[in-house]
Amino acid sequence: MFQAAAKTLSLSRGASFSIRRYCFKTPAKLRVSEAVSGAHLGANVKVQGWLRSVRPQKANLFLHVNDGSALQSLQVVASSELNDPLLTLGSAVEVTGTLRKSPHQKQPVELEADQIHVVGDCNPVDFPFKKKERHSLEYIRQFPHLRCRTNAFSSLLRIRSEATTAVHSYFKENGFVQIHTPVITSNDCEGAGELFRVEVSVSSKGEKFFSVPAFLTVSGQLHLEVMSGAFSRVYTFGPTFRAENSQSRRHLAEFYMVEAEVSFTQSLEDLTKVMEDMFRSATEHVLAHCAADVDLFHKHVTPGHRVSPQGHLLFGVTYSEAIDILNHSSQKFAFPTDWGCDLQTEHEKYLVKHCGNVPVFVTDYPYDLKPFYARDNQDHPKHTAAAVDLLVPGVGELCGGSLREERLDLLRARLEETGLEDTYSWYLDLRRFGSVPHGGFGLGFERFLQCILGVDNIKDVIAFPRFSHSCLL
Amino acid sequence: MFQAAAKTLSLSRGASFSIRRYCFKTPAKLRVSEAVSGAHLGANVKVQGWLRSVRPQKANLFLHVNDGSALQSLQVVASSELNDPLLTLGSAVEVTGTLRKSPHQKQPVELEADQIHVVGDCNPVDFPFKKKERHSLEYIRQFPHLRCRTNAFSSLLRIRSEATTAVHSYFKENGFVQIHTPVITSNDCEGAGELFRVEVSVSSKGEKFFSVPAFLTVSGQLHLEVMSGAFSRVYTFGPTFRAENSQSRRHLAEFYMVEAEVSFTQSLEDLTKVMEDMFRSATEHVLAHCAADVDLFHKHVTPGHRVSPQGHLLFGVTYSEAIDILNHSSQKFAFPTDWGCDLQTEHEKYLVKHCGNVPVFVTDYPYDLKPFYARDNQDHPKHTAAAVDLLVPGVGELCGGSLREERLDLLRARLEETGLEDTYSWYLDLRRFGSVPHGGFGLGFERFLQCILGVDNIKDVIAFPRFSHSCLL
Repeated sequence: MFQAAAKTLSLSRGASFSIRRYCFKTPAKLRVSEAVSGAHLGANVKVQGWLRSVRPQKANLFLHVNDGSALQSLQVVASSELNDPLLTLGSAVEVTGTLRKSPHQKQPVELEADQIHVVGDCNPVDFPFKKKERHSLEYIRQFPHLRCRTNAFSSLLRIRSEATTAVHSYFKENGFVQIHTPVITSNDCEGAGELFRVEVSVSSKGEKFFSVPAFLTVSGQLHLEVMSGAFSRVYTFGPTFRAENSQSRRHLAEFYMVEAEVSFTQSLEDLTKVMEDMFRSATEHVLAHCAADVDLFHKHVTPGHRVSPQGHLLFGVTYSEAIDILNHSSQKFAFPTDWGCDLQTEHEKYLVKHCGNVPVFVTDYPYDLKPFYARDNQDHPKHTAAAVDLLVPGVGELCGGSLREERLDLLRARLEETGLEDTYSWYLDLRRFGSVPHGGFGLGFERFLQCILGVDNIKDVIAFPRFSHSCLL
Repeated sequence: MFQAAAKTLSLSRGASFSIRRYCFKTPAKLRVSEAVSGAHLGANVKVQGWLRSVRPQKANLFLHVNDGSALQSLQVVASSELNDPLLTLGSAVEVTGTLRKSPHQKQPVELEADQIHVVGDCNPVDFPFKKKERHSLEYIRQFPHLRCRTNAFSSLLRIRSEATTAVHSYFKENGFVQIHTPVITSNDCEGAGELFRVEVSVSSKGEKFFSVPAFLTVSGQLHLEVMSGAFSRVYTFGPTFRAENSQSRRHLAEFYMVEAEVSFTQSLEDLTKVMEDMFRSATEHVLAHCAADVDLFHKHVTPGHRVSPQGHLLFGVTYSEAIDILNHSSQKFAFPTDWGCDLQTEHEKYLVKHCGNVPVFVTDYPYDLKPFYARDNQDHPKHTAAAVDLLVPGVGELCGGSLREERLDLLRARLEETGLEDTYSWYLDLRRFGSVPHGGFGLGFERFLQCILGVDNIKDVIAFPRFSHSCLL
């Protein structure tokens, strides 16, 4: 622009002058987060976004413009003459004017508008969100293609994006290599039956695309273990699938999981340390980088919920101690609490409360409850495996992990018992060639967000929830 | 450790002395990248990893230990007395000793071993990789569970991890919000037939899990467009699926795509600028952070390949100009080059060469070649849409993008023509409520890696390739 002006200057005085004036008057395009920062007071700017509120008064018109760059909207003050019936909640606008100090404490900057252009209108009768109403999470969930236009859900999406950054940062800073483990897989990892099957939509000549049955991954663990034979620290972070036919507030058919695997472990402590560090570090990162968005949840969406992981001391109990605690409690449980039974959500919630409403590690679960890859503790009579769960307030199980059976003979014997040794011959190879003690864990990313924000329903912390009987958009 | 020693000190002099000596002698556990850095010369350390070479000589034994933290291995020098028949290529070891300056320029640090412990052996007869052999990418591809143990593929995985970081960093620094677009979807975006269908493996009572037909995503674009109604900059980066029944070196059934969407665009330049910036920034980041790993490829794996994006000037031609160039060339093409025909790989490669072997943008494709969402340029007689592809040397199409039709009437008319208006009524809603000019693009992440590294076969730049008739592990 300045080059063009300079060039014209040499042609004629008049022409140069008009172009120069044009250059100086072209308003700088700012994002809302930049405009409200206060760094551009006095500047002539252009801001684009969607209206979050419209308040016409006698002499002036007040608008709040938001473009998703922050929770805070930019207050626009305009002469009433600039009002237009198309300026309604949800409409898209482009406003030019001058940034001024505002007399209001809450929004120290406002835009004094010279011009308001309606880019896209929004019929207030048809638009499902209404002026001055605080819609519930349940209500906005009915509009998966529009709910990002509410304050609450746009805050959630910014928090989710920042929490993703936090997870990657933690692993990067700690020397982990990120592995893109596959979504389509021919193994089912846990031996669980709740799998989605994948096939071509229109199969040519009835042929199978992959020649073998193919499923959506339920865990990247076995693929990470492949990498654990060459990298001492690896992780993966991506979508994971369970075809659980449940309408619960705790389950999704497609959810995000953070999984890590560490080689040359000595004990479960090598895992719990990483789990605790990552949990703390990601929580602190989110609280520090999304203060306003988290505050919106804690004040208006889930009032009363607080989180301060820095102050938390994480407790650790063995499964056997946990069973003792449950059996000595006065609470009646719906599910049995005999040694050997799996811990149910009611038990987990009790344990968290019992330990002072802080995160709790439960270690060394009964051997028979754990999948073939869990490392045998070789104890008796109560035979356990080196597995660990992290339980957190409000959510229950947040992470699950274990040391993996690295001893070829023990692993082979267990696979032979279940007739799986041929299916997993490649997995046995990992123990045949340079096997090392190792272990890992998975963290449910949505549950992590629920834990921080106090959100009760898991469908409210993911952009496009998929669950039994629902796959909208 | 020091606390324990101090505690014991007060009990008896003898005990304290032995514990103190133990404390001071406990070797620090270092990763190989830390050990070779030169920052710990003279220190007593413990290093764990896998053997990449074993060279017994008369008086001394030389080992190279690698733990995946860097391409460079740590050279271990030991007295021949420490040799053990189990010290073979691929075995896992733990070595303690003292870090010394090495007389060799190539590896300025070496570990003088006191003790070598074989953690996991590796039978050299059964292990598919052999001493002193440089195995081809084709050969190692046969062992998807072991190939990460070769130098070439572990370098690739570190580069891939760092390139992922580079992509996220670029978008974060430029104010984009990351959206986790869904893998399972009920829409097919492009209207292409090459879809994977998703169903429960063991269906209960023959009921469909989602009530509607569900597919694996072929693009996150439409879901990003949902977000473009509230965030002016969004992106997604994750697995994408095509059931292409092809054994080509260019296609995978599961691949990674980077997709971005920008609101309030004025022209295609708003997109090409982001595409170019991201391409440059990610390339520079990888070259700067993975110099040794990239060097391995350029020297030994794909000799002769070089990349220097900083020096590149990106060219831009319209589709119509591209057709003129092709029709004036002396080269004979297998596919027709009439206006209205799609550009084939042979055409794209010619165009890239014609422009001086640099990345080339091709813009404004025939309207009829583009999907319903591409923005109508409303020109004639050659009717075009505001779409753009980025072609790069060696690879061909790296990115594809377009402005999206934001005008409700035009979009509705086009959907009506194809009878899709009911299916996409939610998509039309996005234009009903606060519609804004916007556009976006997708970049094939594997093709980006191929472009940097000069790797010919796409199966060699992804951890677990999935393609027609192949879903190993």
